[in-house]
Amino acid sequence: MDQFRIETIATTDPAWSDLAQHRALAAQLGSLADSTAGAVTRTGGASADGGGGGDVASGAVPTGSTVATLPAPRVVPTFRPDPLLHLDQPAWRTDIDRLAAAADTQIGDYAAYLAALRERRRAFVAAGGSATDHGHLSADTTPLPDDVAADVFARALAGAGVTAAEAAAFSGHMLFQMAAMSCEDGLTMQLHPGVLRNHDPERLAMFGPDKGYDIPVVTEYTNALRPVLEAFGHAENFRLIAFTVDEDAFSRELAPLAGVYPALRLGAPWWFLDEPDAMRRFREAATGTAGFSNLSGFVDDTRAFCSIPARHDLARRIDAGYLARLVVEHRLDLDEAVDTASDLAYRLPKQAYPTPADAPAGV
Amino acid sequence: MDQFRIETIATTDPAWSDLAQHRALAAQLGSLADSTAGAVTRTGGASADGGGGGDVASGAVPTGSTVATLPAPRVVPTFRPDPLLHLDQPAWRTDIDRLAAAADTQIGDYAAYLAALRERRRAFVAAGGSATDHGHLSADTTPLPDDVAADVFARALAGAGVTAAEAAAFSGHMLFQMAAMSCEDGLTMQLHPGVLRNHDPERLAMFGPDKGYDIPVVTEYTNALRPVLEAFGHAENFRLIAFTVDEDAFSRELAPLAGVYPALRLGAPWWFLDEPDAMRRFREAATGTAGFSNLSGFVDDTRAFCSIPARHDLARRIDAGYLARLVVEHRLDLDEAVDTASDLAYRLPKQAYPTPADAPAGV
Amino acid sequence: MDQFRIETIATTDPAWSDLAQHRALAAQLGSLADSTAGAVTRTGGASADGGGGGDVASGAVPTGSTVATLPAPRVVPTFRPDPLLHLDQPAWRTDIDRLAAAADTQIGDYAAYLAALRERRRAFVAAGGSATDHGHLSADTTPLPDDVAADVFARALAGAGVTAAEAAAFSGHMLFQMAAMSCEDGLTMQLHPGVLRNHDPERLAMFGPDKGYDIPVVTEYTNALRPVLEAFGHAENFRLIAFTVDEDAFSRELAPLAGVYPALRLGAPWWFLDEPDAMRRFREAATGTAGFSNLSGFVDDTRAFCSIPARHDLARRIDAGYLARLVVEHRLDLDEAVDTASDLAYRLPKQAYPTPADAPAGV
Repeated sequence: MDQFRIETIATTDPAWSDLAQHRALAAQLGSLADSTAGAVTRTGGASADGGGGGDVASGAVPTGSTVATLPAPRVVPTFRPDPLLHLDQPAWRTDIDRLAAAADTQIGDYAAYLAALRERRRAFVAAGGSATDHGHLSADTTPLPDDVAADVFARALAGAGVTAAEAAAFSGHMLFQMAAMSCEDGLTMQLHPGVLRNHDPERLAMFGPDKGYDIPVVTEYTNALRPVLEAFGHAENFRLIAFTVDEDAFSRELAPLAGVYPALRLGAPWWFLDEPDAMRRFREAATGTAGFSNLSGFVDDTRAFCSIPARHDLARRIDAGYLARLVVEHRLDLDEAVDTASDLAYRLPKQAYPTPADAPAGV
Repeated sequence: MDQFRIETIATTDPAWSDLAQHRALAAQLGSLADSTAGAVTRTGGASADGGGGGDVASGAVPTGSTVATLPAPRVVPTFRPDPLLHLDQPAWRTDIDRLAAAADTQIGDYAAYLAALRERRRAFVAAGGSATDHGHLSADTTPLPDDVAADVFARALAGAGVTAAEAAAFSGHMLFQMAAMSCEDGLTMQLHPGVLRNHDPERLAMFGPDKGYDIPVVTEYTNALRPVLEAFGHAENFRLIAFTVDEDAFSRELAPLAGVYPALRLGAPWWFLDEPDAMRRFREAATGTAGFSNLSGFVDDTRAFCSIPARHDLARRIDAGYLARLVVEHRLDLDEAVDTASDLAYRLPKQAYPTPADAPAGV
Repeated sequence: MDQFRIETIATTDPAWSDLAQHRALAAQLGSLADSTAGAVTRTGGASADGGGGGDVASGAVPTGSTVATLPAPRVVPTFRPDPLLHLDQPAWRTDIDRLAAAADTQIGDYAAYLAALRERRRAFVAAGGSATDHGHLSADTTPLPDDVAADVFARALAGAGVTAAEAAAFSGHMLFQMAAMSCEDGLTMQLHPGVLRNHDPERLAMFGPDKGYDIPVVTEYTNALRPVLEAFGHAENFRLIAFTVDEDAFSRELAPLAGVYPALRLGAPWWFLDEPDAMRRFREAATGTAGFSNLSGFVDDTRAFCSIPARHDLARRIDAGYLARLVVEHRLDLDEAVDTASDLAYRLPKQAYPTPADAPAGV
């Protein structure tokens, strides 16, 4: 952590996590290799140069600060409720029991379920968390009428059968509820839709979930995000960061949406798009319409701690290359480009994931 | 108009417009800021340099002509029947009455409706108009059987209820009818599909329609345009210009379609794609298959009169940059590139919007 | 053949072809202009330089070999069963009779149909064939239960009516069967989906099928290829080469799929994408995720024999340009780029279309 000059690192934790493992991680720092199952690390504003010497790898890195003067690194949890929102997940019923135990409550109906989720979000905020993370197949955020949601939930809880369509609709409904709760507690909402998980069932049986064989699908945002953006797109306390692995949506849907709704920011290229040419295409497709200030800036998303500096370094080089082109084409002045480089590498991610004022500094 | 050396400017007017405001505009010229509600200005072949001095901003601008030798600028109307073709528009019934009044007729059935539209098109042609303009959510042009169309129309007229699916099908049917009428009267047909209007209903309530919050959606052309292209794609008197805000369709659908159907031309990048990088991507994605001669050339589409020279200047710079690349790569000779630059800036738009020989010169 | 230094050329032949014409072609070589109806020539590993002199047109061409030392050119057939797999093709019933005659059998039911197809594949293998070729509207490969497939087939055979949905489902089912047979006989499976044929029925009536007016449509691969990839994606003896004219699927679907399934390779840009800028976009969109070794390398697909060297030359120039960029950006060393150029031009196509050891050398 010192060597990489990382200010903040966020783990991703199940909603039912007691955050003990997270706290242990925060205590020991520097050895995050054995993170929780399904956990990804996200780093906002991490510095990618090697520290130590004065040899700064990327021109986009603010220099002049030294390891000694950095604030203490902070490790914060991220609230990931996915398995609880997808009624057709095999372990859903068990996971609900875990949620109930973590929230120290009984979950006998939909209202108790919402209350338990709200309670766990409070615990994550108290532990310094600044965001939630949502991996859905579709970006749909259409709310159901409360009584319909309550009925579907009750049937799922009773094991009385829920159709695939009902489960999908409930997932979208719960994204809407998560957005509503974000307006209350200030957690930045991260949405990573459009990946068909476990494409090869034989590999799934051999290695378990989240071991590759996840393949993107066409992802629609204009209609799918409309309910949340209509309701909260201008809410001052709401930030929705939309990631995508379908780059075809950059100029058609995501950039125009981010251009008008203050709450929406576009996430950095992710997963299959997290390679040099795709990162460059993102800048070129999104910036003309969305501008720089509607982007999240570079946020890494890795399970490999040691890859963090390389990923930030690469992102900064790509951004610097894009900005250099704008300077050469007289579309930006050099000083504006240097400022923007710092925005993309540092200031925008900090703004996108604000820290609650009352959060403990080191968890 | 003199300073910008604009040869022709087209306003967009409702089908029921008596064109009085248009004639006033044409008379006073030079002060178009207060155009009709919903009006956009389209300029074909406008010159983007500042006139006056000899300092030509864009290398693509034909030089040597001076303001003094330009023909008198012409201001022409464009026929926009959108609200009359969408049976589910809130003001549809009122707008039908406006159409009837403008056409000096009664609209009691589908046949009278078609006749009134045909009559208004004639009035636009007489006023020097060269085009129609159509903003539909889908590019669908599937005709309905006449009796089905007549029945749906009769129910809408009687306020007896039309389903959303029927309204959508009727809109597509009417695009086909508009194409058929264009074959008769020679008006170039402009289609701008694929924008979901008024994405945020709260903003709509605050500011009214067409004030932003319009977001593109996936737009299909291969099947949607097939009925019109089957019927009129080789008609000598028919020109269909397809615009898009879904650049994913450039190489897959639009360029191949424009490459085979003589009547189809690809419109210039528009709206969210009207920015430097997207304009360049359009050239690079469409030209290899469609060639230059199946493009409309640059046609501006603005409500801000003073933006016209800047927009033409930008378009010419992007085109010149693309052509320069082809020259450097030995794919075009320099003299061919210079010729093509003039085609894109001036000759192609003039061809795409031919003036009826009998149209009055200044309206 | 000598002048172009072509090692192998593959014609495309109907499944019922007795291959007599093919054998005649192979015997006479050098005069392929009058190939069979619907035939396309595919050339793997063809050399694009003009032979004769030492003037090598493309830097990617391995030099040092001379015409005299080349192995005898081989002309091999490619198995194209399309008309037999689409139950709603007008000539389907007639074509089934042709298949029965070619296989010297009776086709009275679904089992006999499969057996006849298997028998014809054996004949193609015996004639040196290395691949099958499939042009379907959709990439769907979902197998039907055997009894459902048998029932649909029986009704089609009896002329008793098959719905469009049943015909489409049967086509997908048969793609799965073709993949299964490829695992048995080792024929590389080529899939070219996503083209709506005969867009203009009037042109179809005037000139017949496959004379232009074929337009791409959105093509989905992630779900469509899943059944075949689940079943055979790791089979050692299976190679599926997926072509596309929907470049929007490159980074979203095709590259991620090719990255995980060893059996899948991405075909070279084809048809409307077989132009300089689209070829470059393919490299830039697919390579970051799929790498070079999951590509087929350049495979030409033309009906014009004399276009072969020009097409290979162009492909090699584009590849060399892309590789040069990677060298300049320090992403590849020069010697790696040179090696990769040979892979793309020669070694990868040879690997993608392996020759059965027992195939006769000159047919």
